[in-house]
Parts: sequence; C-alpha cells; structure tokens
Amino acid sequence: MTYTPRTHRLADLTWPEIDELRPHAPVAIVPLGATEQHGLGMAQRTDTTRAEVVADMVARRLSPQVVVTPTIPVGMSEHHMAFPGTLTLSPVTLQQVVVELVTSLHRHGWRRIFVLTGHGGNNSAVDVAVSRLRAELADTHIAWSGITPVVADIVKEQGASQVRGHSCEIETSQALYVDPDLVLPERLVPGSSTLDDLDPAGRLGRSWPGIQFPQGYDALSPTGNLGNPRLATTELGALLVDTVVDRVCGFLTGLIGLPDRSPAPPPARIALETQ
Amino acid sequence: MTYTPRTHRLADLTWPEIDELRPHAPVAIVPLGATEQHGLGMAQRTDTTRAEVVADMVARRLSPQVVVTPTIPVGMSEHHMAFPGTLTLSPVTLQQVVVELVTSLHRHGWRRIFVLTGHGGNNSAVDVAVSRLRAELADTHIAWSGITPVVADIVKEQGASQVRGHSCEIETSQALYVDPDLVLPERLVPGSSTLDDLDPAGRLGRSWPGIQFPQGYDALSPTGNLGNPRLATTELGALLVDTVVDRVCGFLTGLIGLPDRSPAPPPARIALETQ
Amino acid sequence: MTYTPRTHRLADLTWPEIDELRPHAPVAIVPLGATEQHGLGMAQRTDTTRAEVVADMVARRLSPQVVVTPTIPVGMSEHHMAFPGTLTLSPVTLQQVVVELVTSLHRHGWRRIFVLTGHGGNNSAVDVAVSRLRAELADTHIAWSGITPVVADIVKEQGASQVRGHSCEIETSQALYVDPDLVLPERLVPGSSTLDDLDPAGRLGRSWPGIQFPQGYDALSPTGNLGNPRLATTELGALLVDTVVDRVCGFLTGLIGLPDRSPAPPPARIALETQ
Amino acid sequence: MTYTPRTHRLADLTWPEIDELRPHAPVAIVPLGATEQHGLGMAQRTDTTRAEVVADMVARRLSPQVVVTPTIPVGMSEHHMAFPGTLTLSPVTLQQVVVELVTSLHRHGWRRIFVLTGHGGNNSAVDVAVSRLRAELADTHIAWSGITPVVADIVKEQGASQVRGHSCEIETSQALYVDPDLVLPERLVPGSSTLDDLDPAGRLGRSWPGIQFPQGYDALSPTGNLGNPRLATTELGALLVDTVVDRVCGFLTGLIGLPDRSPAPPPARIALETQ
Amino acid sequence: MTYTPRTHRLADLTWPEIDELRPHAPVAIVPLGATEQHGLGMAQRTDTTRAEVVADMVARRLSPQVVVTPTIPVGMSEHHMAFPGTLTLSPVTLQQVVVELVTSLHRHGWRRIFVLTGHGGNNSAVDVAVSRLRAELADTHIAWSGITPVVADIVKEQGASQVRGHSCEIETSQALYVDPDLVLPERLVPGSSTLDDLDPAGRLGRSWPGIQFPQGYDALSPTGNLGNPRLATTELGALLVDTVVDRVCGFLTGLIGLPDRSPAPPPARIALETQ
Amino acid sequence: MTYTPRTHRLADLTWPEIDELRPHAPVAIVPLGATEQHGLGMAQRTDTTRAEVVADMVARRLSPQVVVTPTIPVGMSEHHMAFPGTLTLSPVTLQQVVVELVTSLHRHGWRRIFVLTGHGGNNSAVDVAVSRLRAELADTHIAWSGITPVVADIVKEQGASQVRGHSCEIETSQALYVDPDLVLPERLVPGSSTLDDLDPAGRLGRSWPGIQFPQGYDALSPTGNLGNPRLATTELGALLVDTVVDRVCGFLTGLIGLPDRSPAPPPARIALETQ
Repeated sequence: MTYTPRTHRLADLTWPEIDELRPHAPVAIVPLGATEQHGLGMAQRTDTTRAEVVADMVARRLSPQVVVTPTIPVGMSEHHMAFPGTLTLSPVTLQQVVVELVTSLHRHGWRRIFVLTGHGGNNSAVDVAVSRLRAELADTHIAWSGITPVVADIVKEQGASQVRGHSCEIETSQALYVDPDLVLPERLVPGSSTLDDLDPAGRLGRSWPGIQFPQGYDALSPTGNLGNPRLATTELGALLVDTVVDRVCGFLTGLIGLPDRSPAPPPARIALETQ
Repeated sequence: MTYTPRTHRLADLTWPEIDELRPHAPVAIVPLGATEQHGLGMAQRTDTTRAEVVADMVARRLSPQVVVTPTIPVGMSEHHMAFPGTLTLSPVTLQQVVVELVTSLHRHGWRRIFVLTGHGGNNSAVDVAVSRLRAELADTHIAWSGITPVVADIVKEQGASQVRGHSCEIETSQALYVDPDLVLPERLVPGSSTLDDLDPAGRLGRSWPGIQFPQGYDALSPTGNLGNPRLATTELGALLVDTVVDRVCGFLTGLIGLPDRSPAPPPARIALETQ
Repeated sequence: MTYTPRTHRLADLTWPEIDELRPHAPVAIVPLGATEQHGLGMAQRTDTTRAEVVADMVARRLSPQVVVTPTIPVGMSEHHMAFPGTLTLSPVTLQQVVVELVTSLHRHGWRRIFVLTGHGGNNSAVDVAVSRLRAELADTHIAWSGITPVVADIVKEQGASQVRGHSCEIETSQALYVDPDLVLPERLVPGSSTLDDLDPAGRLGRSWPGIQFPQGYDALSPTGNLGNPRLATTELGALLVDTVVDRVCGFLTGLIGLPDRSPAPPPARIALETQ
Repeated sequence: MTYTPRTHRLADLTWPEIDELRPHAPVAIVPLGATEQHGLGMAQRTDTTRAEVVADMVARRLSPQVVVTPTIPVGMSEHHMAFPGTLTLSPVTLQQVVVELVTSLHRHGWRRIFVLTGHGGNNSAVDVAVSRLRAELADTHIAWSGITPVVADIVKEQGASQVRGHSCEIETSQALYVDPDLVLPERLVPGSSTLDDLDPAGRLGRSWPGIQFPQGYDALSPTGNLGNPRLATTELGALLVDTVVDRVCGFLTGLIGLPDRSPAPPPARIALETQ
Repeated sequence: MTYTPRTHRLADLTWPEIDELRPHAPVAIVPLGATEQHGLGMAQRTDTTRAEVVADMVARRLSPQVVVTPTIPVGMSEHHMAFPGTLTLSPVTLQQVVVELVTSLHRHGWRRIFVLTGHGGNNSAVDVAVSRLRAELADTHIAWSGITPVVADIVKEQGASQVRGHSCEIETSQALYVDPDLVLPERLVPGSSTLDDLDPAGRLGRSWPGIQFPQGYDALSPTGNLGNPRLATTELGALLVDTVVDRVCGFLTGLIGLPDRSPAPPPARIALETQ
Repeated sequence: MTYTPRTHRLADLTWPEIDELRPHAPVAIVPLGATEQHGLGMAQRTDTTRAEVVADMVARRLSPQVVVTPTIPVGMSEHHMAFPGTLTLSPVTLQQVVVELVTSLHRHGWRRIFVLTGHGGNNSAVDVAVSRLRAELADTHIAWSGITPVVADIVKEQGASQVRGHSCEIETSQALYVDPDLVLPERLVPGSSTLDDLDPAGRLGRSWPGIQFPQGYDALSPTGNLGNPRLATTELGALLVDTVVDRVCGFLTGLIGLPDRSPAPPPARIALETQ
C-alpha cells in the first residue's frame, strides 16, 4: 500500500508504469467535459476543467487506488449552439464514446469504473451508456455522477438567485477555485436570475417541478448564463468542490470495499421435457 | 370551443374525425409504459396502465385540446430481466421509437407534444430523444415527464418506508386507484424497505445522493420490489394521481398559451470578404 | 396439464405467476399492430385489435401452452401518412423492436416463438427480423404470419370487389367480429373497387402479378380504403377469424411437437495442416 | 427514337455516352443476385446470372429506353451458410446497398427505377429498401420484382415435384436457358421433392399456407436443393424466362407512360390561430 | 498438391466442389471495384475489371491455393458523382460489405484473406474494415492492397505527365492489357496534366505532400481524367499488371507460410485480492 | 488585421470573444490524438500532445487567422490494446466524432477546416469522415494531415533504423521538442529495429511495399516500439516539427486564398418530355 505512482493519469504514464500500478488501482475514473459557451465571462472549457480537477483531486486523495483517463473535452451541447463557438456531439455518439472508453478499461482488467461528468447536458447520454455497460459487462461495477448534484444540499443553502444553473454564482465559484484562468471577473454579468427574466417558455419550464421542458439557452438568456456570477467567491467554490471530492472519495471507498460483481446466471430453457 | 370529439385517442378515431379534431387539439401526448416485474402482487403492465390512465384523464380534462397516441407497452427494463417475464428494449431503440412517433405527429401538424412515461427506467432514453427532437423539429415545443416525480413533494410527506421506489406503497397506491385489476392485494409483501435490507452494492448506491450506482433488481430485492406495498391505499393513489393530472394540465395549459416556437436563424458564413 | 393460469397475457401477470406458468407454456406469441387510417368508417387501431384478439383466441384455445406479449400498437405505415393521424415507425426500427422483444423472451427461456402481425405493411420488416433472429438464436424455432393471408383461399371465394385489400369488405368483416367498436357502420363507403377507380400508377401496380409497385394510399383512394366495406358482415368475419385461429393453432401444435432446434455445428478451420 | 447506344450497361459505357443516352432512357434497372449454394450441380452464381440476363434482355427489347447497373453478386443468404462457399450480407446492409444505388441513379436524374432480384432471399430487404426510397425520393417511381414469381401461373402448371423451390426443375430450366455453363447436368440429383423428404420442421413449414416458418437449407435437404432438377429442360427455361421478359417489358412500358410522380404536399401546422 | 479445381472462382463452383477445394486453398481473395467515370474514353467498369483480372491471374498462378469471391462492382465514388453514371456507396456501407464478405469466408473456415481493391477511393473504407476484422476475427490473417500502389516504383519511372492519377496513361495502360474492350482509343484525350491545368484548389491539394485536400473530379478536370491516356500502351500495362501479380503472389506465398494466427490472451481482472 | 485575440483556443475563450474573433479567423483546426502505449519510455499522451502543440504553433504563426478546437485525446488504437492502458475508439465512432465537430464549426460559420491527427492509426477514419463531410457540407473546404507524413522527405534522410515508426527516434525526437515531460530518457530502449527483429508476420508486412498487412504491436515488438528512440534528439525534433509547422502554414495560407467553395449544381431530372 505504500506504492506511489508517478501520477494517476493514464495519459501521462508509460505502459510498464500502468502495468505496475494496475494491481494497486482497482478504480478508474472517466471524466467528461464540454466545450460550450459559459456566458460573457467564463471560458468554454469550464466543464472540462471542473471534471478534470475533481477527478485529479479524488485520485490524489485515494492514491494509488484510482487512475484517471483523459477528459473528453466535448459533450452534448446542442442547447448552446446558438452562441458562437460551442461544439456538440450527438447523444448517440457521446454514449458510444463512453461505452468504448469503459470497454477499453475493462479489457485491461478494471472492474470498478466511475464516469464523472462536469456537464449536466451529458447526463442522459451517460445514464444510457451506463445502462448498456451494466448489461454488457456483467462482472463490472459502474457508477456515475455530475459535480454540482453531489452537493445539491449545499447549493440549496448557498445560492442567492431565484433562477440558477448554467454559469451562475454556484458554477462560477467552482471555476474560481479549480482554475482562476477560467474566469474574466470584470466581464461577469447577471444572467436571467428571476422567473421574470425568462421568456414565457423558460418560465413555464421552471414552474412545474418534475416536468422537463428543455430550452435553448438563447431563449433563456441573452448573455447565455443564469443567476448572478458576480456573487461567486473562491471560498464558496472551495466549499463546494472540496465537499464533492469528500463525497466521491467516500463512495469510491465503498465501491472498492464491495465484493466483485458476479454475472447473473444464464436463463433456463423451456424445452420439450417441460410439457 | 364547444366541439366535442368522440374520443381523444388517436387509435380509436377514424381519419376524418382526426382531421376535424386536429385544429381544436394543439397538444398531443405520447404515453410510454413497460412490461416488467412489479413484485409478487402487481401485474407487469402497471407502468403502461398508469401512463395510459393519466394521459386519458388529462385529455378528458382539457378536451378537446389534447389527443393521445397509443401507449407503447414496452420500455427500458434491462435491470429487471433477472425476473421471468420482463421485456426490454435497448435504450437506443426506445429513443428511436419516441423520435419516430413524435416525428409522425409533427408531419400531421402537431407543434406542442408531451411525452409521458409511466416507467422511470425510460427517463434517460426519453430525455435523449427529446434533445434530438428539439434540434430536428425546430418549430416544435416538446416536453416530457414521468408520473411520480411530478408529485415528489407529496411522496416525501406520505411514504412510510426508508427505502422506496419500484412497486412500493407509493406506486401500488397509484395502481389501486387507476386500475384495481393491477393488484393482487393478498400477495403483496414488503420488499427491501430499509438500507439494511439491501445488499452492500444497493446500500452503497442509496447512500450518496447525486451519485448514480444503478443495480439490477435481483440484487436489490429477492421479491423484486422496494418499500411496503401493504401500506398502499386507494385514497393515497387518488391524491397522487389526481395531483399529477392537475399539474400536467396546468403545464399543458401554459404550453398551449405559448407563442409558436420559431427556429433559430441560420448561422452566418465566415467567407473571404470578412478578412 | 390441468394447470390453468389466471391469464395467458404476460403483461397481466405477476412474475411469480409467469415463473409458474413458464414450464407449461412452450410457445410465446408477439402480436404487432399499427395505428393507421382505415378509411372513413374504421378506427385507426383496427390492425392492433385484430392481432390482439387473434392472439388471445389462440392462447385460450391452446391454454396453458401459449403466452402472449403486449401488442405493439404502431408499425410501418409510411404509405398511409398522407391521411391525418397515421403513426409510423421506420422499417429498421420496427425490425429492431421485434428482435429485442423476441430476444427478451429467449432470455427467459422461450424457444418456440410466433410473431403475428395484424398489419401487412409490417411483413417485410418482420421477415427481416425473423431472418436475423434465426441466425442469432440458433436454438430457437421462430415463425410468423399475418392474419388475412392465412385464409387467402377463403378470401378468394368470398370477396366481391375486383380491387380489395386495405379496409375492404374482408378486413371490415373481421373488425365487426373481433370488436364492433372498431366500426362506424353508417360511415362506411366503397373505396377504389375496380381497376378503373385507381389512378394510372395504382392500376399499373395491380396489373402485373409478381411485380411490386407500392403506392401511397392517397394515390390509390381518396377515402383511404379499397373494396366495398358495406358488404362486410359479422358472419364473414367469424368465418375468417375462426379459421385463422384454427390454422394457427394447428401450426403451433405442430411447433410444440417438434424436437428442440439445435444450432448448426461450428465451421471447420482451413489451417496449415491442410496444404 | 432511332438513337442506338453502344450498350445499355452503365458499367460498360463512358460518361459522355451516358450523358448522351440519359434523355432517351427514362428507366434504370438495378439487378441483384447472390453467391450461394445451388445443390450438387449448379453454380453459386446462378441467381446473379439469371438477374443479369433478364435485365439485359429487357433492356435490349426496350432499347434505348432502359439502362442497367452492374449486378450486385451477393445477397441475403444466411439460410444457405451451412454449405461451404455461400456468402451473405445482413439484411440491413443489403437494404443500404439498394438504397444507395437507387439514390445514385436519382442524383443523375432517373425517376423511374426497377430493382430486379434473381434471389428470393433478397425480397424482404428489397421491399424494405423500396419503402424507404418511396418516402425519401418523393418524385420517383420505384418498383421491384423477382423472376420466378412473375411467372407463378406457368410454374404452377409446369412443375412436377410436390415440393419445389431452390434449385428445382423450374430454376434449373432457367439456368440452362440463360447460361448453360451454370449447370453440370451429370451431377444434378433430386433434392427433397415430397413432404416426406423434409424433416419435421420443414414439413411443418410447408403445411400451413400463409404461415412463414423459414428453415436453413441444411435442415431442408442434404443436397441443398428441392424438387427434381433432372426434369429441367432448356425449352421450359425459355418459356419461363421469355415470359418474364415479356411481362417486365409490359410493366416498364406502363411505367414510362405514367405521369411524373409528384411529392405529397407538406403537412399543415396546428398553430395558435386554430384554437 | 496435384489437385486441380475446375476454377478458383467461388461463384462458378458448386458447393461440393468448394468443399473439395477448400482444404487445398488456404487463401481467399475479395476483389472490389467501382462503377465510376473514367474520362472520355474508358468504361465505368475499369476498376472492377482490373481488380477481377488481377485476382484471377494471381489465383491461376498459385492454383489451387487461392479462391476468389465475386467482385463487388460498386465502391466509394462520391468524388465522381458530378459526372453522369457514377454509382457510389457510402464509406460506412462499403466497410460493412467488406466486413460481411470476409466474415462469411471465415465461417467457412478461411483464415488467410486478402482484399484487393481496383479503386483507390475504396482505400480508407477497406482499411477501416480490415481494422475491425482484425479485432473481431482474432484467429485470421487479413491483408489488403490496391493495384497501382503495389508498383509505385515502376509508375514513378514510367509516367510522363506531371499530374497523374485517375484515368491517366498508367491506368489506361493497365486497362488496355487486362481488357481492351474497356478503352475507346480514339476518344482518349489528355486531362489535367500539369499543375497549371488544375483549378486553384486542385493545385493547392497537389502542392503539399502529406497534406490531404481531396477534390471532386469535376473541379480537377473537365474531362474527368488526369494525365495523358494517349500515352498508354499495352506493353506498359503488361509490365505493370504482371509485376503486381508477381508481387501479390510473393506476398500470398509468404502468407500461406505463416503460422496460424492466435488470438491474444484474455485480459487479467483487477479484483479485490489485488489490493 | 492588427486584431489580436487573447488566444486562438476556442476552449479558452468566452463566446463574445469568439464572436469578435470569428470574422478574422477563416480557418479552424481540429486536432486529434490518442491514448496509447508508446514503448517503455514515452507517455501515452504523446500523440495528443504532438497534435496539440503543432496546432498551437500554426495558429500562433498565422494569428489571428486560425482557431483551434480542443484536442480529442483518444483515437483508433485497437492495435495497441494488448499493452495495459491503451484506450481505443472504434473507427465508426471516431469518424462520427470528427463529423460532428466539423459540423459544429460549420454551424458557427467556418468554411475552411483542417483536421490534424497526431496518430497515424486515425488516418483511415479521418479520411472517411472527410469524404462524408465534403459531400454533406458542399460549401466547405476541408483538408487533413498527420504530422510525420508532412516531413516524409526529412524522415527518409534522418532516420537511422531499418524498421521505424511507432515510438522510434523520429517520434521520440518530436516528443522531446514539443514537451520533454513526455519522455523518460533513461527508460528508452531500442524496439524492433531490423526486419530480423520482427516476427514472421511483421516481417512479411514490411516486405511488400503497397500491400497492407497490419499487425498488433504485441506481435511486432515486445516493448511496443519500433526503431531506436535512444537516437532521438531535441534538435531533430525541432527540425521535424518546425518544418511541419512551416508547411501546414503554407498550405493554410493557400487555403485562405482560395475562392469560397460552391456546391455542385443540382442534377437534372429525366422526365417525360425527354422521350
């Protein structure tokens, strides 16, 4: 257990180092990001960087038990395509990328795999990919999460704006903490922050909990963001991100402690002798 | 507005009736179900029937403004396949079915479409389908929901079991209300109802909010259900279902009141003259 | 053999009931329908209901040897899309739905499976799906049929119109017998009933047996139907449907009596020692 | 109309010749074959050659009104794979090949296209492809046929064997006529020719008209053929093939005479003003 | 080794002949062609015929060690679609066709397979297909080549034109040798033969070795060809084609001499006991 | 032209910055990498980093005319999967990723796009993607290259080993120059460097120019590399990479100077009036 790898990042290692590290590292994390508009004052790589930093922090905390794949820097961002510069994969392609990365890890022996998406727009595609992988890789434990949803309780207490979400004070605080280069503080402006700031469709979509009425961000906000990123602080970012890291580490420690997953037994056959 | 169609169900009507009804019915609902195990005492069609009945109740309430397609009686139920009788579509196929049904409605002129799934296992595939449809049908308002999540606030107050979900007192109450034939009351038994009832993986998956660690139901519960369906009552079912109907009607009324959705303008071209 | 299940419908049963029924029921039927225009006086669900009723009648007759999955209520109906209300799946998606339903049954142990389509437009997609399934499930007997083609001999004797087919006296008679609610008798009108009623392309397509020249129904008939549904009678419907049931039961009895299907042996390898 | 092209085969021409021929040749034929076992005495290319020769004969008869693409020499032959040498495409791939060839022709201006398959195993995939093409190419007349089904009436009168079909006296007669090199007469042997020659599944599959129970040919016949090819004669082949050519020419003459196909009008929109 | 088959072409043989030949013929060749414009004086089937003839010559030289499948007469020719008559498959479909043909051969026991494309436009799709097949068929040696690239050294010495390639003196010489019917000598004209003959994009694409800037042939050359086919001679064609045959035979002899390919061992599992 | 963006990396910018930069930057580069074994002494991200650095150098040189998307850090590496840690996408998925990224750029107005792959294993998938994109985006100039092939002339002069390629002195020199952290110099060892070092299949594959016989790297080299990376020098790396940058800049300058690409005119229709 005193083994210390040069790094936990699979991309930075040589294959003999990975071969040596492998038996000490039962968990692999696959971080997913996005390249999409984040309002007037935050870089397009914000989700990529948040996922990458959280994965790195978790891996360092649990070292040498966790390896991390490179972060996929594009995701499902169709709803931001009205702003120049956003790149998007279709959900089917994103699913397939996740399936193939996890399958690669499985072929090298990993049986405990965690997909971490920094971008909420990836959630459904990831969930579908994980469903497929659970069926295809019947001996593998596979889990996934976003970042902000892991601290939904804290967000509820901390967020000041009535309408929050994309590039609001919560996300901007995280960005300030994980990589201040992501933020151009002087350009931050409040986005749509109250129901009254939204257009009628956006307002309707936020008025009925449990009903999903997704909108393009061009309809939701002329600046592309919600909430008030000017309220963001590094301290809040630290609270949020450090707690996410604590909790993901807690989960992964539990995951490492589970018995190996066993495939379900093959089905019986309804044959002639049964009549 | 005093026009009354013979029924709101597209499958029960003739085409001239639909042609006549169409200008009065701006909204179409697409209900989705499942054929999957629901524990020892509930029929496999429970999700199909709940979706169908809620859709019918909404359509009657808002008549003649809503039409309803036939309910797709199978969904994404891979996680129940260890129990005999469950049928499952892959998430990619389910997505495609939803995309093609909504596209059919669009070809007949509908521009306000609501997908209602009675089965939570369909959620991600539906969400992905809706994402695709928003991009492909740029002049169409499209929304979706499940049933129980629309009344999450009531569920929180009413549920007795620590661990709830599939075929628990909440779902069984709905079944008793929408179609008592779904339930064999004498066979209802408590499923896994506390964290201690779960196996270690199931317990881990329920211990970290925001982290998704999906499990096959064979691992979660030997009977295939969670919670305690013996606590189910028709009264609770009525409260839950009637409130879902109220809220979906509220949302759809808002949806009807929205201006038509306009496609985003085409992107500019970065050509020689721009240098 | 004296075992009597509560019902043969998988959707209506609980999983323990299916588990108990399974060894007594070597055959599973997968009924397929459609939601498509059926002329001025017949409901869009006509094909769905005909498939469902025939499957139920067969299962009751052979009880407990047959189970029935829920009927898929949409099919390949592109050629009816010019009439408001028709829903259509692409043939590739329909194939995939059939493949996945049959594969689900196979996973639960069924090795004798019958796909019954109430809609002729599904035939090719079903045939392709069955071809794939024969190769993929090498231990499974799989067969399929429509409804009316099983009694082609009787149709030849009974039909009065020169041009028949969709929503003619033959199909309408079946509808009257299986579910009178399908028919609005007072609205039935003759459709294109002679070659002279067809447009030139429709006439050409019916003039050369063995040559397929499919046409949209909007080109074939302004009312969407062929033949003369006013000639339909419940008696003719009973004769047709009861004979279909007799014959499908005869076939399935033969199917139950077959030895289990064995996969073909693996191919030899052309290796070095062969030179 | 006195224009005579060097040949009707697109593959044998140069592009300027095709450009010159094009306005005189409103019809394009796409022949499809197979490479599959044809019993002990007939070559694997039998279906390819029959399709190619019939297409050539039709094109010559109607010259210069018809062009012919190269024959695709493989098809859907999964059911023959137990015999060494058979090649097979999946039905989805074969569909796609047909769709893309027809689409290529459409891009060069053809609006009357005929797919001619020499192999019955291709039928469903072709039918599905034609369905897709009718929807995608809304200005194009598209039809298809096999060879033997076009003369089903003659086959009924002429065939001697109770069980006929693949590589029987009917098909072998055609082969003798279109290309005697296809046949090794001394090796021809009777295949399964009566119901008693079939195994129980094969017998069951031929006992219920209208019910499809496809079997691998290894199960149907140890030699891979049905019927009695020793009864084949060049004279019968000439009768069958010449009649097919007559009838396809009759159909294509009708097709040329049809008005251009017009796309259906776009659907109306159910918008706010309709309430 | 003195065994002599009637022919090496799988399509021309009966299955018992293939069964007898199989142990003597460890190698199968899959030739691929195209139907695409070849300038003013060469037939559209030029690539198909070149592939077919080379495959036949190789098989005869190495008889009985090589069998040949029928040539697929269409390929990836999108870049020629501006000229009337060209047919094209999408690269994904072409890949799939190659994968399925090779897989058919594998099912009959072949473990040494060579794909020979007469059309350079097929290269990438073939390369991708071979990559997939190497992974899927882990016990099979699989290789591929074009024709002209195998004699790149001779081409470099012999070609007279500065810009060469499609339907130039090199390809036309091959055509004259393998099948003089392919060429209409009196119609041959020089195509774009110098960089100055190309449009700016075509010139740019040929100016930076290693950078791929593919162009449609309509942009490259008004006649559809490059170089000067009037310089073609049968003698040069013989030199080129005979050398290709020599070299492919050399390679295949080496391939036959290799030990059987063994699948890689399955990956280890990173399980609990490794911590 | 004196406009200077904060950076050329789309991921590092905000959307208003991209909006402002866009008219000055007609070219977008899409870099592609890989995560795959690079022998005993080089990191798995070597190809990713080389692509990224070259793209950055090109963009800085031509600033502000070029923007760069984030580098995709995984590619087609199936042939390295026998070494622990390699990740691979299927070629179909990689194609799709490229198609969707380029399509995203097109939607934001880019019409001159360059795909730069640092990994040769991606070549075929990229070439196929570019073929599709040329057809789908008919108004867009699209080109692609690798890195080392752009300086094939220098490599020919400089490489010392008979067998070179993956992780040889050429690639390692580039790595030392673009990012010394990629290399652990003390662990570099010669890989298979002569034909005699290869196994028989590897030797065969390198013996016949123009014939492709791809091998897994586990078969080619026990260390996973070819050539002799100990001969690598930063100076050689600088020569190679700087020349690649020069040449890509030369090409892109030409690309910027081209007239806009115009779609081909729509095809004529062969209609009735042509007879």
